[in-house]
Amino acid sequence: TKVFCTCCLSPSVEPLVAIELEEAINLEMKRWLMSRIEAQKKDGGAQLLVHPGEDDDSALILVSATPCTLLRAVEVLGLARPYHNGSMMVFSYEDRASFKQAGTDKNIQKFLTLAERQYLVTRELESLKTQDETFIPGYPKEKLYQGECIFQSLQKRGFLLKFYPLHNKEELDALAKKWYSQTHFAPQPLGSIHAYFGDTIALYFSFLQFFTFSLVPMAVLGALMYLLSWDSVEKYLLFAVFNVVWSTATLEFWKRRSAAAAYGWGTLLLKSQFEEPRGNYWGPMGVNPITKRREPYYPSWKRKLRICLVSGPIVCVFLGIVILGIGTYLWMEEWVQDYHGRNDTLLSLLVLYMPCFIHTIYICLMNSVYKTIAYALTEWASHKHEQGHTLHIIQHTMKFNFVNCFAAMFYITFCLKDMQLLRKRLVSLLVVSQMINQFTESLLPYLLNKLSFQGGTAGKKDHQDEPTIDRIKSEGDIPTFPGMFDDYMELFVQFGYVSLFSCVFPLTAALLVLNNVIEIRTDALKLCRLYQKPFSSPAANIGVWQIAFEMLGFLSVVTNCFLIGIAPEVTEVSASHGVTSFQLLLFTIVVEHALLVLKTVIAFVIPDEPDWVKLKVAQIEYRSLNALKRK
Amino acid sequence: TKVFCTCCLSPSVEPLVAIELEEAINLEMKRWLMSRIEAQKKDGGAQLLVHPGEDDDSALILVSATPCTLLRAVEVLGLARPYHNGSMMVFSYEDRASFKQAGTDKNIQKFLTLAERQYLVTRELESLKTQDETFIPGYPKEKLYQGECIFQSLQKRGFLLKFYPLHNKEELDALAKKWYSQTHFAPQPLGSIHAYFGDTIALYFSFLQFFTFSLVPMAVLGALMYLLSWDSVEKYLLFAVFNVVWSTATLEFWKRRSAAAAYGWGTLLLKSQFEEPRGNYWGPMGVNPITKRREPYYPSWKRKLRICLVSGPIVCVFLGIVILGIGTYLWMEEWVQDYHGRNDTLLSLLVLYMPCFIHTIYICLMNSVYKTIAYALTEWASHKHEQGHTLHIIQHTMKFNFVNCFAAMFYITFCLKDMQLLRKRLVSLLVVSQMINQFTESLLPYLLNKLSFQGGTAGKKDHQDEPTIDRIKSEGDIPTFPGMFDDYMELFVQFGYVSLFSCVFPLTAALLVLNNVIEIRTDALKLCRLYQKPFSSPAANIGVWQIAFEMLGFLSVVTNCFLIGIAPEVTEVSASHGVTSFQLLLFTIVVEHALLVLKTVIAFVIPDEPDWVKLKVAQIEYRSLNALKRK
Repeated sequence: TKVFCTCCLSPSVEPLVAIELEEAINLEMKRWLMSRIEAQKKDGGAQLLVHPGEDDDSALILVSATPCTLLRAVEVLGLARPYHNGSMMVFSYEDRASFKQAGTDKNIQKFLTLAERQYLVTRELESLKTQDETFIPGYPKEKLYQGECIFQSLQKRGFLLKFYPLHNKEELDALAKKWYSQTHFAPQPLGSIHAYFGDTIALYFSFLQFFTFSLVPMAVLGALMYLLSWDSVEKYLLFAVFNVVWSTATLEFWKRRSAAAAYGWGTLLLKSQFEEPRGNYWGPMGVNPITKRREPYYPSWKRKLRICLVSGPIVCVFLGIVILGIGTYLWMEEWVQDYHGRNDTLLSLLVLYMPCFIHTIYICLMNSVYKTIAYALTEWASHKHEQGHTLHIIQHTMKFNFVNCFAAMFYITFCLKDMQLLRKRLVSLLVVSQMINQFTESLLPYLLNKLSFQGGTAGKKDHQDEPTIDRIKSEGDIPTFPGMFDDYMELFVQFGYVSLFSCVFPLTAALLVLNNVIEIRTDALKLCRLYQKPFSSPAANIGVWQIAFEMLGFLSVVTNCFLIGIAPEVTEVSASHGVTSFQLLLFTIVVEHALLVLKTVIAFVIPDEPDWVKLKVAQIEYRSLNALKRK
Repeated sequence: TKVFCTCCLSPSVEPLVAIELEEAINLEMKRWLMSRIEAQKKDGGAQLLVHPGEDDDSALILVSATPCTLLRAVEVLGLARPYHNGSMMVFSYEDRASFKQAGTDKNIQKFLTLAERQYLVTRELESLKTQDETFIPGYPKEKLYQGECIFQSLQKRGFLLKFYPLHNKEELDALAKKWYSQTHFAPQPLGSIHAYFGDTIALYFSFLQFFTFSLVPMAVLGALMYLLSWDSVEKYLLFAVFNVVWSTATLEFWKRRSAAAAYGWGTLLLKSQFEEPRGNYWGPMGVNPITKRREPYYPSWKRKLRICLVSGPIVCVFLGIVILGIGTYLWMEEWVQDYHGRNDTLLSLLVLYMPCFIHTIYICLMNSVYKTIAYALTEWASHKHEQGHTLHIIQHTMKFNFVNCFAAMFYITFCLKDMQLLRKRLVSLLVVSQMINQFTESLLPYLLNKLSFQGGTAGKKDHQDEPTIDRIKSEGDIPTFPGMFDDYMELFVQFGYVSLFSCVFPLTAALLVLNNVIEIRTDALKLCRLYQKPFSSPAANIGVWQIAFEMLGFLSVVTNCFLIGIAPEVTEVSASHGVTSFQLLLFTIVVEHALLVLKTVIAFVIPDEPDWVKLKVAQIEYRSLNALKRK
């Protein structure tokens, strides 16, 4: 392919992103699309490198970019890069000679990671807009309006089937070796993960590792308590205070950790970007009040109405079904207790665990059914931006998951006050639900993948020798990555078990550590082998999940205090000392409020960013102010 | 004076800021200072207009600025101004022709308000730094280091006595007429206040007005309850819920209001500025890690140590004194009750109110003594930036005020559970402390001012005919404005009375409305006539005060709920229905937690910025992104 930008022509071009069109596509359209991708910026193109795949007739388009285009895109994005003096600096194309590795064009692969290059190319492709075409070339009936996003339009009409970043075989193998194939325990290669998969994925694995490490002291304390079978009032108090300090400190230190990581990635100072509307956004044509462009415009009051009148009731119905499930579970629980009481055999002992087991499966089932519905409802609400869309899904699913996973536990705790049952339930949830999760998340896709390979063309050996173009095509055939959503949700539920109920069953943390050590490997395997390489956008923190975890932290203070207040050991001791239940309750309230204040103070005292990051940020801001003054 | 910038020479120059030097100053120094102020930017000067006052020998320097210098300063500051299409836009000097009023240089007084021009001049003066002078000209012994702030250095050494913005007689008279001289009730001329006094002052008066208006429904409800002498359980519940909704909604809507105002002032998008160290900042010479300049550097760990080891204990001692005062007060209270019981005369009835009265005076006294000490301690902690300094003072004083004003009330409420006494105390605090405040804040300075005028040269009539230079001098002689700190603190305490305790004495809100209607006028009088014109910096919100008020809001939920829980009416009713005190407490806890959640939800649901402001901000950001792309 011809390279327009003569300033930075490199001998070999690495394909970054593949586009797969419909098989029976009109060639005129393919040529048009390629020419638009190649066209220069000033002509409204994306100024990228493009290759027509095997031959001109194939449905594949490979896209790459010259260093020059990438560097300009970095400037527009506002990413920070290492400056010659060692600290990070918001990249400026004019001043590129002062940045490490950016001066010479050969070093682009060191200057920008694979994930970053792929993100930039995607961004350029997705912002490609129609100029004065009134219809899609080759398809006179498919009208286009001026300034329509070409990619979204083609995707919506079914001309563009797939659109995926490409794996780099060598890098992936090297990463896999360091990451999950090793047998000894070593920290994850977070740098390589970030370079290969990008910010969001690296943040998830970093958080998973951080969370697992932070669980260790909790696990040790819990295991000690369990082994010593220490059952006293002090134990409860100690555990409650430890819990509050632990949950707050963990979340605060994670914020610092992610700020430090984001500084190194250059995303810490990234301003929130102006977002193009989502591909699936629909509505009647209108004028965008921000850009003043003509485009589909769905009024936000209609969206709110839809959410209130339809989504709301549907969620309520589902919550009703969940609560019905809890009722049935509690009824079954009573029945098996009764049955076990009447005929005390080994079978009846096994039956004793059945209700919990069945209900846990029910919960997992409900979760996945609800997820499908939440996605459909959110799609139907037609959120304009990806951000609002994701936020809406997370909110919906989190509320539901919260009720689904914790409602029964709250009921057992505060209404039945049956600590024995709570403990039993916690154990069964921890063991069963995690087994199910691991199975459906990784093992099942893995087996399916194996099966399809064997049923398909050949074994793995031939696979390595096949030409690049076939490898690229086969990458397009495996399923797309569903996002980190389920994985975060799993951690959310884990965090809930630990912070809300672990004082009832101190081994919780230990079980979770064990689970997470395996989880890291299965998640890594899943990401590397079972799915298409995911797109990844720049991120500086885990976003809304941080808030969700912090809310659980606050709730944990309340549950912990009242768990203590109603614990049989505590009530016994206080009764023997002549403390009335009124006084005990009063005491519990005072402790609860004190702990809430303590929590707020801890969160406030620990700065959100390490001192060195603060200093670096101040330096960057000072420099850019000075640059403005000198202008 | 010679004007360097020939592009914008205007016939008459309005003096903006006056500098008063020591009387017996070496003329060489005055000339040096003037030349540095006049020098062009590229020579390290401030590029301002300067006038030597009456004659070259006088100690006065008058400073003004050409429109050109002001416009460049606006760009560096990053203020937004009205664009030709009607919306606000971050000002750019290059693009100045597109801004309303800025194209022609004559309109600078319409383009920038008096307060803004004075702020910009001050900013330029304060950022004036030494170039290669090694000592102050005329004083070879006074050494200077390179890059030292000239103004701070002269102030520290006592060469520069005063430094104040000048009043504009006509504008001030017009403003005063509209503001506090009128007899009928009309909203304040907030636009003129902002133009004349600047952002911080306008925000205070705007908040005061908003707060007073928001008190009206509360006052009506309270007055109705008082008149109908409605004493039932429902009253308490209604009041508590109303209180929670009211306090949350007031603070949230205020945020919206201030965001809308800040948009109009162009300060909403203002980024936090790099701050020069404070004038009184001291420490051994070191290297500033951000700017890499040599300057006094006081390590922050030493500051923290000072705060912990000295400020902390001193604050504790003061809190001890306050608590001692409360003890004495409660003892006196008991004694007078006893006295009144023994001899029931008119005198003893009067004596009955004495403890409250004396303790209120004690509280006011302690407040002002403590304030002096808090200022001294904060100064001694050597905060580097004005922001940290102010924050520290506010924190210190707020904690103390909180204990000082509310501790006795909390004790009476929760330990003595004496609603009668609480009511009596609230009334006496409201009436007496506000009378004292109004007196010391406005009436006393006013009288002193009057006295000094009569004892001084002449009456007001001659005053108007005196030459400008004498008026400027006389402005320097009146005291400097102490800042809005005390006024905000007063509102903080008011907000506390209303939200924490008003369910005990429903007339609270009505009394406060009455007080605030007067307060607006006395504060305005004070600002216009009794003090030097204050400097004002750009601001978009009331900053830390917003957080302080919100914290009070959360506390109010707790107190309101427990005030209900222990109210005699409620306990009587519940006892007659066979509800145990344990159940009542449990109910109170549930209500408390529900209200806390309600409060959080309300705060979350009401957006912090009105929709139109959000849209405008998005438009501004979109435009600046596009400008970057086109570059």
